[in-house]
Amino acid sequence: MTVTGAKDSTVKRRLRLGMVGGGRGAFIGAVHRMAARLDDRWELVAGALSSDPERALHSGADLHLRPDRIYADFNEMARREPRLKDGIDAVAIVTPNHAHVAPARAFLKAGIHVICDKPLTTTRQEADELSRLAKETGLIFAVTHNYTGYPLVRQAQAMVAAGDLGNIRLVQVEYAQDWLGTRAEDAGNKQAEWRTDPARSGPAGAVGDIGTHAFNLAEFITGDQVAMLAADLNTFVEGRRLDDNAHMLLRFSSGAQGTLWCSQVATGQENALRIRVYGDKAGLVWQQEDPNVLTFMPLGAPPRLIRRNGAGADEISRAASRIPGGHPEGYLEAFAQIYTDIAEQIAARLESREPDPFSLLVPTVEDGVRGVQFIDAAVRSSQRNAGWVEV
Amino acid sequence: MTVTGAKDSTVKRRLRLGMVGGGRGAFIGAVHRMAARLDDRWELVAGALSSDPERALHSGADLHLRPDRIYADFNEMARREPRLKDGIDAVAIVTPNHAHVAPARAFLKAGIHVICDKPLTTTRQEADELSRLAKETGLIFAVTHNYTGYPLVRQAQAMVAAGDLGNIRLVQVEYAQDWLGTRAEDAGNKQAEWRTDPARSGPAGAVGDIGTHAFNLAEFITGDQVAMLAADLNTFVEGRRLDDNAHMLLRFSSGAQGTLWCSQVATGQENALRIRVYGDKAGLVWQQEDPNVLTFMPLGAPPRLIRRNGAGADEISRAASRIPGGHPEGYLEAFAQIYTDIAEQIAARLESREPDPFSLLVPTVEDGVRGVQFIDAAVRSSQRNAGWVEV
Amino acid sequence: MTVTGAKDSTVKRRLRLGMVGGGRGAFIGAVHRMAARLDDRWELVAGALSSDPERALHSGADLHLRPDRIYADFNEMARREPRLKDGIDAVAIVTPNHAHVAPARAFLKAGIHVICDKPLTTTRQEADELSRLAKETGLIFAVTHNYTGYPLVRQAQAMVAAGDLGNIRLVQVEYAQDWLGTRAEDAGNKQAEWRTDPARSGPAGAVGDIGTHAFNLAEFITGDQVAMLAADLNTFVEGRRLDDNAHMLLRFSSGAQGTLWCSQVATGQENALRIRVYGDKAGLVWQQEDPNVLTFMPLGAPPRLIRRNGAGADEISRAASRIPGGHPEGYLEAFAQIYTDIAEQIAARLESREPDPFSLLVPTVEDGVRGVQFIDAAVRSSQRNAGWVEV
Amino acid sequence: MTVTGAKDSTVKRRLRLGMVGGGRGAFIGAVHRMAARLDDRWELVAGALSSDPERALHSGADLHLRPDRIYADFNEMARREPRLKDGIDAVAIVTPNHAHVAPARAFLKAGIHVICDKPLTTTRQEADELSRLAKETGLIFAVTHNYTGYPLVRQAQAMVAAGDLGNIRLVQVEYAQDWLGTRAEDAGNKQAEWRTDPARSGPAGAVGDIGTHAFNLAEFITGDQVAMLAADLNTFVEGRRLDDNAHMLLRFSSGAQGTLWCSQVATGQENALRIRVYGDKAGLVWQQEDPNVLTFMPLGAPPRLIRRNGAGADEISRAASRIPGGHPEGYLEAFAQIYTDIAEQIAARLESREPDPFSLLVPTVEDGVRGVQFIDAAVRSSQRNAGWVEV
Repeated sequence: MTVTGAKDSTVKRRLRLGMVGGGRGAFIGAVHRMAARLDDRWELVAGALSSDPERALHSGADLHLRPDRIYADFNEMARREPRLKDGIDAVAIVTPNHAHVAPARAFLKAGIHVICDKPLTTTRQEADELSRLAKETGLIFAVTHNYTGYPLVRQAQAMVAAGDLGNIRLVQVEYAQDWLGTRAEDAGNKQAEWRTDPARSGPAGAVGDIGTHAFNLAEFITGDQVAMLAADLNTFVEGRRLDDNAHMLLRFSSGAQGTLWCSQVATGQENALRIRVYGDKAGLVWQQEDPNVLTFMPLGAPPRLIRRNGAGADEISRAASRIPGGHPEGYLEAFAQIYTDIAEQIAARLESREPDPFSLLVPTVEDGVRGVQFIDAAVRSSQRNAGWVEV
Repeated sequence: MTVTGAKDSTVKRRLRLGMVGGGRGAFIGAVHRMAARLDDRWELVAGALSSDPERALHSGADLHLRPDRIYADFNEMARREPRLKDGIDAVAIVTPNHAHVAPARAFLKAGIHVICDKPLTTTRQEADELSRLAKETGLIFAVTHNYTGYPLVRQAQAMVAAGDLGNIRLVQVEYAQDWLGTRAEDAGNKQAEWRTDPARSGPAGAVGDIGTHAFNLAEFITGDQVAMLAADLNTFVEGRRLDDNAHMLLRFSSGAQGTLWCSQVATGQENALRIRVYGDKAGLVWQQEDPNVLTFMPLGAPPRLIRRNGAGADEISRAASRIPGGHPEGYLEAFAQIYTDIAEQIAARLESREPDPFSLLVPTVEDGVRGVQFIDAAVRSSQRNAGWVEV
Repeated sequence: MTVTGAKDSTVKRRLRLGMVGGGRGAFIGAVHRMAARLDDRWELVAGALSSDPERALHSGADLHLRPDRIYADFNEMARREPRLKDGIDAVAIVTPNHAHVAPARAFLKAGIHVICDKPLTTTRQEADELSRLAKETGLIFAVTHNYTGYPLVRQAQAMVAAGDLGNIRLVQVEYAQDWLGTRAEDAGNKQAEWRTDPARSGPAGAVGDIGTHAFNLAEFITGDQVAMLAADLNTFVEGRRLDDNAHMLLRFSSGAQGTLWCSQVATGQENALRIRVYGDKAGLVWQQEDPNVLTFMPLGAPPRLIRRNGAGADEISRAASRIPGGHPEGYLEAFAQIYTDIAEQIAARLESREPDPFSLLVPTVEDGVRGVQFIDAAVRSSQRNAGWVEV
Repeated sequence: MTVTGAKDSTVKRRLRLGMVGGGRGAFIGAVHRMAARLDDRWELVAGALSSDPERALHSGADLHLRPDRIYADFNEMARREPRLKDGIDAVAIVTPNHAHVAPARAFLKAGIHVICDKPLTTTRQEADELSRLAKETGLIFAVTHNYTGYPLVRQAQAMVAAGDLGNIRLVQVEYAQDWLGTRAEDAGNKQAEWRTDPARSGPAGAVGDIGTHAFNLAEFITGDQVAMLAADLNTFVEGRRLDDNAHMLLRFSSGAQGTLWCSQVATGQENALRIRVYGDKAGLVWQQEDPNVLTFMPLGAPPRLIRRNGAGADEISRAASRIPGGHPEGYLEAFAQIYTDIAEQIAARLESREPDPFSLLVPTVEDGVRGVQFIDAAVRSSQRNAGWVEV
């Protein structure tokens, strides 16, 4: 195989990462840490890993944090870290949705770059505030719409931008899971508990949790914006307080149309995020569960199977790959790419140079704001019986 | 391989078929004839194959029709055939949409069973009239929603009916093609010409041509009815007079929800009819382009690949198969099943016996009426900016 | 969709077919009849359908044969048919392997074209005799290696011949089934009984029944010959008298190498005939269970999915198609193509014209002889502990 | 999604890893480092990364090694590290094949656990020597047949061991690549240079480089041994000095039979390692390029798609997973599992406890010896025109 894309760092030092949330038993926190480790551009050095002081302590010890870098309170961490000689370069916020805004605000104000899980916030006002703060401080604010880290998603985006598909007519995007097909929130599943709780999840369930990813993917790949949507939200599992399924009609600014389906009750589907984009010259299909292939379908010619870091892969997707084609990369590698790109952006600032342009593909606070606008629009539309609303 | 399902006829004689439309150069007429031949229960003996007398004559000769059974006018055929000792048992109407109603009316009145292509008619009034006439005459009136002839579509229907999926929550159905992605109607493509011409195709384009198949498939498999829909019809190819793409939200009588997408401008898609049904116990997926497998996904268990006439195939799908699993059957075999089932229904009448119950799965004039109602609802909804309308 | 390849006959009359074997309960006889019917170039008019006179009679009646064309003895049929004004043009021999040679000899001597199932005979001498007789009489002698009737198999052959793959290096061909994974021959399965009986099946089991198809496919697509093979035959089911699995190393005349695997005990496989050919410029993959796609893999470029009668399909595969891409064709259509091509060859003789050159792709008695040589070589090699033998 | 299998370490400290080979531009060294990092049980602290002192130095700096832990000579590293308070716990040897034995010997003698790339050595004597040394010292000696780290490979192994497939009859294993389809060794490809050079690669090319992986996978999953093989090695690319393709017949100790194909000239294949195992109760298929699914085919029942860490996944495969089903893991995660299991074995010794039994699935020096025996047998067989030899 060809030697390409090995990700050993060539920066002068590893960047120092702090984390808010992600203590023992958390899901996404562990994912962020694996992602940060993979390409060796980060070391986790500090954390306010839980709001429960004892759990914060034990969680920090699990992760070999130095005792003085284990915080019971993120505010204290935001106050102290900037004063340390080896303080953190960035903080990763991996708490439930409602608990993003406070630490994000605190660390921005402390002059620390922010990596925040999605959806950005549970209200549009909070989203706008963070956007404003990010702009004012000039700090990097990344939102982990991690699916954009997949090499072939980036290639899809580049192909659309280069006009390989011609004028985009149709976008079909969907994200189907089944893990909330029963009352998991009553069966001791912590993830299910907070994600179905309006107080912690925000005004939407499936729409916020995974619909935002689908929405982000559609806007990322097309480089277009959803201008209007008509959304039919529903809750199939009795007693649940938030939507667990939504069907939407989409109208894009460019005139393209499409549908968005997100579901957490689609029995038999695990994590079936899929996007299909059709232009007047070609179509393309990408599926997250089979991420190492991008099907490109030029008008009147046989579909081509573009393979990650293999034949047909372009410069942008090769740059986001670690190992040769045929050696599958997956979810963690794509997530790692986000972390690596953020590191590159920060390192460029530290070294007073321009960052690798591909590193700028990382979703920003503005993409986070779009996600919150999307949730808001979907909920409003649904309240109007799936009437059209602007996003 | 196991010997199963060979379709040699055991009826006393082949049934006699007449055809209206389907002369030289026609597409669907030739398909009907192959379908009728495959299982050897029919022989084509008469035809009014074209409204152009000379073309009718040559087309009849091509098909080895006896000269006296080649008609220039279907009315004459409807008058004369019933008086022949060996007159036709049934007529297949394979003309463009607007030209279904007149021959259907004529043959029903002549006491001849009717096999009619879809959509049944171009107006609801005509559809209702045919439905009424069929009821009054007691004749068999089949509408060739041929995709219901696929063995695994029938098994899917049976599995839903048996409760294998539990309560149905979601139905995603789509039918994507790309052959009208450019102005084919101006490039000498006869199929494109009439299918994009409101005078011949009716009030809808893609919605009528293929949307009706998707709609029929959804209602057939679920055994449920679409109560309401919100449809966003669009015409992407400039200058085209009918829709070439539609996105719809669906609400079923049972409370299930879903989407329907039909397109003739989805670059790279050939004939991608696909349905996914999700219940609270299991989900299933069937794709017309890969019709020999039905993916059944029980909650919490690995998906199972049920293979036509192979392991997991039930009685109903085996009965609609000709050859063992692993020996792929396709579109023509499924279409042939429709013809074979109609033959069985007619033979049972001739022999004063009950027909094989599976033969009653053939779509009837009522299914044809539903198709016309669907078209009507979709057009109305679209005129109201995708507002909800009843079907 | 585009109207292409509809197979309505334009010859002056349907050809008349007789059949030897294929009575009630037979498998392959029914397949031959469906294949002959599909494209409407044949009508079955005579048959010696069983060696049991009563069964012959009933079977003929089932098929609507005229009583005077139902024979209890193929010799009588061979004597009488040539003297009829409307006697048969060709005979299809669909008996078990050991019972091919006698009727083939009789009909050739009677001046009637022969369509014979495979393997041609159970001994090399008999195969040579039929080859000689066919040459002497100048009659058409087709052997139903039906998989060559698949459109994309023909395209694969044409692509190799055109040099699209460069010099062929590797051929991996396999044919895996599981229907003899248990002692089906003791469970009343008639197919299993004769196919595992040396007296009727010949010196080989799986090798003769399906290995010959794999071998034929490899030689057909590559246009090359297997010069030598080393074969490891085995019988996994205790008490079985013939091989039910074989692994072989292949060396082709051109220097290409490969393997052939055939099995009737590969649990979970239905009819998994698959071939992969690799040249120095490109590779290709075709699988019988998914026959509407041919994967073409040019060196250093993304694999292309060539679809039957769709984008990328060439003239030769389009000519063997009935319906547009996306409307799957299968096993029966491919088998029908063989019958249609034979009809074309005969019709050309009747009409004193050259046949369509594509019709000459039908496997001949020489291909049948190769199959018998292959069986002989495999058995000899296995007796020598998988030593190399010439084919 | 369900929270399962997050791999944050709970050991008291990260283990300390040294590396021999793997300097700038190397392929597999970078892979080992990513694998070691992912689950956070290792930190790389020392290295003799190149035999070129300057390159060793720069490579060490790239990796943030402390200057005093960057060695120009692995012998010095083997001498010094054991004397350090924070010396390495294990060494990873990632040099070309011929350069495994010397460092392996040195570190074993220095009392340091060894992780060695495959094939273990280039001669049987050397392999035996390392096996003996490992036994004498009692040290852990892992050989990175990394494909055994895939969760579903482990599940396949467990299913065979549990009898889910019944008695194994057939094993088809293959490993196809195309990256040596042309004279890459003359085009400046460093990987190609040494892998086609007998002095560095050993007596075999493709057989050693990837055939050993296929062989290991077959023995690992079946728990059986290949008793005899007949191998047809070939060199298709002119001027190449080692085999670039091999076909083999296999006979297992249990009576199972099979084939092994390995190729580096199979145009269009990237890294197509695939295994199919058929028993009298069921069959299974696993493909490295689509590693998140294991197809299980019980006799007479529909195939089941067992998904990594999803429905149907067993305890053993769940334990080797990091993230939920539907979130694809790939090559690096499987490789990481090997490193994590080695860490567990070492940690258990450090903590005087029994290791997690699953961690013992890591291939050992004995598996490495089997690989060298396999290479030796294949070369000998090929020299005897593919005659049978014992492995």
